Amino acid sequence: MSAHGGRPTNLPRTGIGTDVHAFAPEGQERDLWLAGLHWPGERGLAGHSDADVAAHAAADALFSASGLGDLGSNFGTSAPEWAGASGASLLAEAARRVRAAGFEIGNVAVQVIGNRPRLGPRRAEGEAALSAAAGASVTLTATTTDGLGLTGRGEGVAALATALVVRVDG
Amino acid sequence: MSAHGGRPTNLPRTGIGTDVHAFAPEGQERDLWLAGLHWPGERGLAGHSDADVAAHAAADALFSASGLGDLGSNFGTSAPEWAGASGASLLAEAARRVRAAGFEIGNVAVQVIGNRPRLGPRRAEGEAALSAAAGASVTLTATTTDGLGLTGRGEGVAALATALVVRVDG
Amino acid sequence: MSAHGGRPTNLPRTGIGTDVHAFAPEGQERDLWLAGLHWPGERGLAGHSDADVAAHAAADALFSASGLGDLGSNFGTSAPEWAGASGASLLAEAARRVRAAGFEIGNVAVQVIGNRPRLGPRRAEGEAALSAAAGASVTLTATTTDGLGLTGRGEGVAALATALVVRVDG
Ligand SMILES: [Zn+2]
Ligand SMILES: [Zn+2]
Ligand SMILES: [Zn+2]
Repeated sequence: MSAHGGRPTNLPRTGIGTDVHAFAPEGQERDLWLAGLHWPGERGLAGHSDADVAAHAAADALFSASGLGDLGSNFGTSAPEWAGASGASLLAEAARRVRAAGFEIGNVAVQVIGNRPRLGPRRAEGEAALSAAAGASVTLTATTTDGLGLTGRGEGVAALATALVVRVDG
Repeated sequence: MSAHGGRPTNLPRTGIGTDVHAFAPEGQERDLWLAGLHWPGERGLAGHSDADVAAHAAADALFSASGLGDLGSNFGTSAPEWAGASGASLLAEAARRVRAAGFEIGNVAVQVIGNRPRLGPRRAEGEAALSAAAGASVTLTATTTDGLGLTGRGEGVAALATALVVRVDG
Repeated sequence: MSAHGGRPTNLPRTGIGTDVHAFAPEGQERDLWLAGLHWPGERGLAGHSDADVAAHAAADALFSASGLGDLGSNFGTSAPEWAGASGASLLAEAARRVRAAGFEIGNVAVQVIGNRPRLGPRRAEGEAALSAAAGASVTLTATTTDGLGLTGRGEGVAALATALVVRVDG
């Protein structure tokens, strides 16, 4: 990993992304999408998009590692063609843009923070969906916050992601 | 770091973990465990476990980096033999499982977020305890949130961790 | 990246840092400093320092990756010469200390979480300011929390950062 003089060359780059969406108000029909999966029977998250916090945090972590802006600058109001796109589509397009800019994606790690849904039974399925979207290994984990904060009070769901990319010198 | 064709090989992997526990209710006797250390005279955190947010976040970051599930899937209700285990024990077992799956652990970095206890005077001691448990370098830092949010209001303590591992090709 | 026996050597190290500051009370004159930039006309954040959450989180992530303590242990009450220093100055000094301890800085990634200010229009400018301070690539991204939590209620601004460093084998 070292070139002449002992200086490391072409270090990988780390990035970070978080996302939060509120649960849709009671009585409002809204499907839950999380980690690229549809969750029948679970209360949906609100938002103009599908509100998939896991996919959004993963995409933002990739942009963050690569210096390509963020979800807002890539897919926001100035890019109406992406309005209403699924989280998985945004993650796939983020990964495409990161590679087009000359990076290889190492991995992405996403942690979902919230009371509902219980992610465990579908963790492998969610990892597969997000990894297929990114074309790289995406791990998925979950935790709760002991009844505290916005997720503990059941107001919404958060996700936290980190990503590792490296410039390809090919 | 590059093989033929300029493609990076065997990139390290990054992972992320957070944990939150509420302070035990006033009047309830409960010891505080944090960063593998006992904190006499400090109000304890609640939970079925020892509620060591630093050790839990570190273990979850290792699982996240390695794709081995999370604290819940490894040590949850389906693994009653780990009920009541200390945070340091869970971190040690997480590190063991990560290595058994073929990974080398680079480092883990944990930040504790909360008003109490004041971590500074025992930072080096906590780093030593967590590093001994993980068998790898674990750094420990602390911050507060300016009176805001669940930690700022003194409802609980949070921890945020990132980890780096690499698959051993040996 | 592998030495004899297939064991990786000199892995990069990852670190994490968060920071939160409350908005200054209504009616109090207080300038906003964020990402090394002055934001005329925006409500300021409170604090003894300039309350630059982005610079503070970046500096803490560098310390976290390097095991050199944290903002408090480096620039706190025991180091009165740093009282009142700008966030950019603290980030520059953190980077200097990390290099003096034998590390090369790979990159730092900072995400600002809050309703105000709108970072997008000045994202490139903020990245330039933070990168100049750190002497390394600092990426800057932003998000909101859908009206939830301390940032969603407009009580303050948070930042979350990760950093990658590597020991230089000179
Ligand atoms: Zn989102
Ligand atoms: Zn815990
Ligand atoms: Zn600060």
